[in-house]
Amino acid sequence: MQNDPLVVFTPSGKRGHFPVGTPILTAARQLGVDLDSVCGGRGICSKCQITPSYGEFAKHGVTVAPDALSEWNAVEERYKSKRGLIDGRRLGCQATVQGDVVIDVPPESQVHKQVVRKRAEAREIIMNPAVKLFYVVVAEPDMHDPSGDLERLRMALEAQWQISNLQIDLTTLQTLQTALRKGQWKVTCAIHLGNHAFRPRIMQVWPGFHEEPIFGLAVDLGSTTIAAHLCDLQSGEVVASSGIMNPQIRFGEDLMSRVSYTMMNAGGAAELTAAVRGGMNALFSQIAAEAGVAKTDILDAVFVCNPVMHHLFLGIDPFELGQAPFALATSDALNLTAAELGLDLNPSTRVYLLPCIAGHVGADAAAVALSEAPDKSEDLVLVVDVGTNAEILLGNREKVLACSSPTGPAFEGAQISSGQRAAPGAIERVEIDPVTKAPRFKVIGSDLWSNEDGFSEAVASTGITGICGSGIIEMVAEMRLAGIVDGPGLIGAPELTGTDRCILDGRTYSYLVWDGTANGGPRITVTNRDIREIQMAKAALYSGARLLMDKFGVDKVDRIVLAGAFGAHISPKHAMVLGMIPDAPLDKVTSAGNAAGTGARIALLNQDARAEIEQTVRDIHKIETAIEPRFQEHFVNASNIPNSVEPFPILNSIVTLPDVNFNQGGSSDGDSGGRRRRRRG
Amino acid sequence: MQNDPLVVFTPSGKRGHFPVGTPILTAARQLGVDLDSVCGGRGICSKCQITPSYGEFAKHGVTVAPDALSEWNAVEERYKSKRGLIDGRRLGCQATVQGDVVIDVPPESQVHKQVVRKRAEAREIIMNPAVKLFYVVVAEPDMHDPSGDLERLRMALEAQWQISNLQIDLTTLQTLQTALRKGQWKVTCAIHLGNHAFRPRIMQVWPGFHEEPIFGLAVDLGSTTIAAHLCDLQSGEVVASSGIMNPQIRFGEDLMSRVSYTMMNAGGAAELTAAVRGGMNALFSQIAAEAGVAKTDILDAVFVCNPVMHHLFLGIDPFELGQAPFALATSDALNLTAAELGLDLNPSTRVYLLPCIAGHVGADAAAVALSEAPDKSEDLVLVVDVGTNAEILLGNREKVLACSSPTGPAFEGAQISSGQRAAPGAIERVEIDPVTKAPRFKVIGSDLWSNEDGFSEAVASTGITGICGSGIIEMVAEMRLAGIVDGPGLIGAPELTGTDRCILDGRTYSYLVWDGTANGGPRITVTNRDIREIQMAKAALYSGARLLMDKFGVDKVDRIVLAGAFGAHISPKHAMVLGMIPDAPLDKVTSAGNAAGTGARIALLNQDARAEIEQTVRDIHKIETAIEPRFQEHFVNASNIPNSVEPFPILNSIVTLPDVNFNQGGSSDGDSGGRRRRRRG
Repeated sequence: MQNDPLVVFTPSGKRGHFPVGTPILTAARQLGVDLDSVCGGRGICSKCQITPSYGEFAKHGVTVAPDALSEWNAVEERYKSKRGLIDGRRLGCQATVQGDVVIDVPPESQVHKQVVRKRAEAREIIMNPAVKLFYVVVAEPDMHDPSGDLERLRMALEAQWQISNLQIDLTTLQTLQTALRKGQWKVTCAIHLGNHAFRPRIMQVWPGFHEEPIFGLAVDLGSTTIAAHLCDLQSGEVVASSGIMNPQIRFGEDLMSRVSYTMMNAGGAAELTAAVRGGMNALFSQIAAEAGVAKTDILDAVFVCNPVMHHLFLGIDPFELGQAPFALATSDALNLTAAELGLDLNPSTRVYLLPCIAGHVGADAAAVALSEAPDKSEDLVLVVDVGTNAEILLGNREKVLACSSPTGPAFEGAQISSGQRAAPGAIERVEIDPVTKAPRFKVIGSDLWSNEDGFSEAVASTGITGICGSGIIEMVAEMRLAGIVDGPGLIGAPELTGTDRCILDGRTYSYLVWDGTANGGPRITVTNRDIREIQMAKAALYSGARLLMDKFGVDKVDRIVLAGAFGAHISPKHAMVLGMIPDAPLDKVTSAGNAAGTGARIALLNQDARAEIEQTVRDIHKIETAIEPRFQEHFVNASNIPNSVEPFPILNSIVTLPDVNFNQGGSSDGDSGGRRRRRRG
Repeated sequence: MQNDPLVVFTPSGKRGHFPVGTPILTAARQLGVDLDSVCGGRGICSKCQITPSYGEFAKHGVTVAPDALSEWNAVEERYKSKRGLIDGRRLGCQATVQGDVVIDVPPESQVHKQVVRKRAEAREIIMNPAVKLFYVVVAEPDMHDPSGDLERLRMALEAQWQISNLQIDLTTLQTLQTALRKGQWKVTCAIHLGNHAFRPRIMQVWPGFHEEPIFGLAVDLGSTTIAAHLCDLQSGEVVASSGIMNPQIRFGEDLMSRVSYTMMNAGGAAELTAAVRGGMNALFSQIAAEAGVAKTDILDAVFVCNPVMHHLFLGIDPFELGQAPFALATSDALNLTAAELGLDLNPSTRVYLLPCIAGHVGADAAAVALSEAPDKSEDLVLVVDVGTNAEILLGNREKVLACSSPTGPAFEGAQISSGQRAAPGAIERVEIDPVTKAPRFKVIGSDLWSNEDGFSEAVASTGITGICGSGIIEMVAEMRLAGIVDGPGLIGAPELTGTDRCILDGRTYSYLVWDGTANGGPRITVTNRDIREIQMAKAALYSGARLLMDKFGVDKVDRIVLAGAFGAHISPKHAMVLGMIPDAPLDKVTSAGNAAGTGARIALLNQDARAEIEQTVRDIHKIETAIEPRFQEHFVNASNIPNSVEPFPILNSIVTLPDVNFNQGGSSDGDSGGRRRRRRG
């Protein structure tokens, strides 16, 4: 009725006329305003807090009188005195419309609130978890009309929350009768709203109104580390983050050696499965303890991982992933339970695994796609998740291509003579003076350059122990910039480079970075074999990206996103000098941090994102580098530093690459690995 | 096209024109003729065998030429030479239409074939199991278009069998890749077609064409015994039947003492759950071994049981069932897995529990309703499942009422001084000479009456050990007919009954049936307390039935069905003399045998029957005897033998009940139990 008072909601701008006496929550629901409630308007949960505004609102064409809302009632008074309420706030289920009014819904009262994120360019996360809480009042049993407690609970949930066809886990059914009676026929249910794989389910029933939050885990199951974020499923807040080494490491550092282990040892795959699940359980205990949360209150979990980890975690022998045609047992997303996977959480806990893109492009790459959303990008973006395998995505709104490329472990400091993991004492930044050819560097644990005052003292406790992944990239790039190494990747003799730091080391030369032997430390050099390892790794990465550019029909990309913890530490300039990534403006090369973990978190907090990434993955064009002849060609070209055919015009406008050639007519060295194709792993 | 040959199928009568060259299986499918196929028309499974008929068919208006079907092809020849084929049969997927033809589909080639049953009046069972086999040819993995093996299997099942949105159990996924490769991309899948509770699921994948049948279990979980039928899910045949004592008996003979055990002992309910599940596993091992079937080939199971067993089997504390308002944790049907229930079958095995009707009327009563189908009866039928609790159904097409009544264990020979279980040596049939008042009887294990020649020799090995449940009913009824016991239930003194077999036994008389003490055997008597126990039991049963008749608004029923193993042995005449069942023509009182077990078998073999009984149970009017004042009144009247107010005109037209009264003015005995309400159990 037009004579009824007008209610205007902000920030949505939704408006409508409601009879005097209508609770604000009711008005909001009828207008489809996003106003939360767990208790269904019973003045218990306080999720529906709103802020009425008073006075003239020309914009809305309304004047709000001081008595536009009902007076405080007993429920509101009790709530405020017991639990407190921000000044100006009212409970939307108690305050009723008395006249025209403007109602602001604060962010924390919105169901689909946005999760606050630190990265400016980060994709926003809108809360819409798969598991939600619902408070219901259940009819008591009646001998005249006998029915089961579950059936009456179902009726209540259907009538009060419009959720139908609810299933229940047996473990939850076993506790139902006690909970209903303890709560005097008022209970709070945690409900998974279901999807294409399974019907909506009652996962947990607590007596009365359940005050405590419920939680979910976003797990990034990597070959080396398992990292988990414990999130509040109502606020979206990360309440604890923790990580452990993947206990499978004792069966092999890299994935391929673990796959080999499963092939060579009967029951090996089962051992690896038990190891990773055991590690996971230890991690979950640790993170729950850290946050002071009961593991049984963790009701949802999302996992991302590469295909081999995916199979081993599921208890599927990864044999087929070790050989062409690299067939996954399943590529679609999986909906499982903690119990099925032997995870020591609530037995009802739902486990969601993101889809795999292809045999070498796993759920972790799908999570990166979810986080970085190349499919929603206006400009053409190249997303590279740098690790032992590089997963590469290229695309924009039109289409997205994906492939993986076997970079090997060199970028992690492995198979490098002085290489090491990123840890205190590792060289992570390098500059080489183009005149003196002397290096200065920084080690993890200190902000000082090695030629600055106080450096020795600063590194006294850690020492200078080796070169980490990002350090070796800078090192080789600086050697190329300083004319110590040539385009084909040969280190020059002292007479050609003009520095004694180039020292004969067998049939090739090495470059001396640091000699700590006088103080009992290591002698850190870069050997020509190290250069070869980096050449192979970067050539694999570049040629994967270049192949996708071919398939897309472009010669350049608008921007580059480096994902992965390692990506966060790569210097864009040095990466481009190496020819590891395509030529691009440096300010268009950004780091996304642990995008796979972020993708897991998005899928945990927003169930629509699951359907979305499943569709995105179906739409992605998968390129298998192993069967693309041009990949080999790109690989050979990319073995050069930066590249034997690509012009890199933007790079050349920033730096000058010395035109040196140290090949004295013979072959470079016995290990002509630059052309050797690296095995997967 | 009308010029195309005409194909007429019998017995369905379906007909249509099909182009020359159309396989018979294709024609059948297009017409909706029920012709089986597991291999999808590849000439492997031979399920689509048909019999062409030749010559003149005036009825169909068609003449079938000798060349109406294609000649035998290589596939058919090979099948016939290897596996044999009944003369005149062809493979429907190989034989093609060449001219007008009449095709008979033999019963074993029908998917929805009728299961042969022994009982003439038995409800027919049409095969339509929830789990079926499907043979598929799956696309091999392709590096150019990478997808998971599961996804290609799903596509194959969708394209070849039109089954979509298939889920898979993790345990099955773990074996998928091996099966696909071993079968060279041809596999047989066992698929559960899903229902309102869960999506269709791939339960098992075998390499190639799976020749062996798959199986299901129909389990009748009783308080005393657990009985199971192992059924072939394609033919419907019962391949083995077996039973064991319910191991819970060590916690209490009757249900109420088991419920008491759970109340008095912490963890008692869990002990009872473990006991019954353990017993079940032993039974399944036994029955599988007996049939020579692998337990992993058992893919579906249906359970029926009373509410207390239902809860204990599920691991739900039966506490609430022991007290008003007798609330079930859940009354709806349940869809679970063997794994969830700790059953040692295939981990994927689906478990279906029929719905419970009310707190005292369980899934076993629902199974009786499914088997005896009172809701489909034209005439008004009373169905009584006689056990420790009697479950009673009364109804016809219009409506069905249900209640339970606490008969106690007297009908099973318990709480009777000379009572025993039905076993060799137990008296099961009795006649008492109305003149001499001497009994003659038969014992289990011999067909001779006790006064016939050779009886002593026949029972020499078993002895005469006691009276079983059906024996005690005949005994008391015969005592009433012979004037040894009066209407109120008093045994007369020798001077009033004229026989020395009536002997003073404390303050009342007992009737001597057999004195075996001279040969070291027992002295078998019927005490007045035994009469009281039977009076209470039969009064409970009758008053439950009578209450339903009140509620239905009738004074008589058209027919009576006695269900339960015990019901099979009750003599209708004696039951009526006792006043245990309402007055009815004797030929209208029939036995349905183990109707609960039959109902379980129906639900196992026909998934539509599950939906049907779920609806029937929702529609049944549940009557709780505990809160019906008239139940008490009926109970008091029914304590008399046969009844103090009901006329029983049909009974009185068959027998003459002596008009005796042995009450000598005092009260009968201290235990005036006839009016005592028995506790549930």
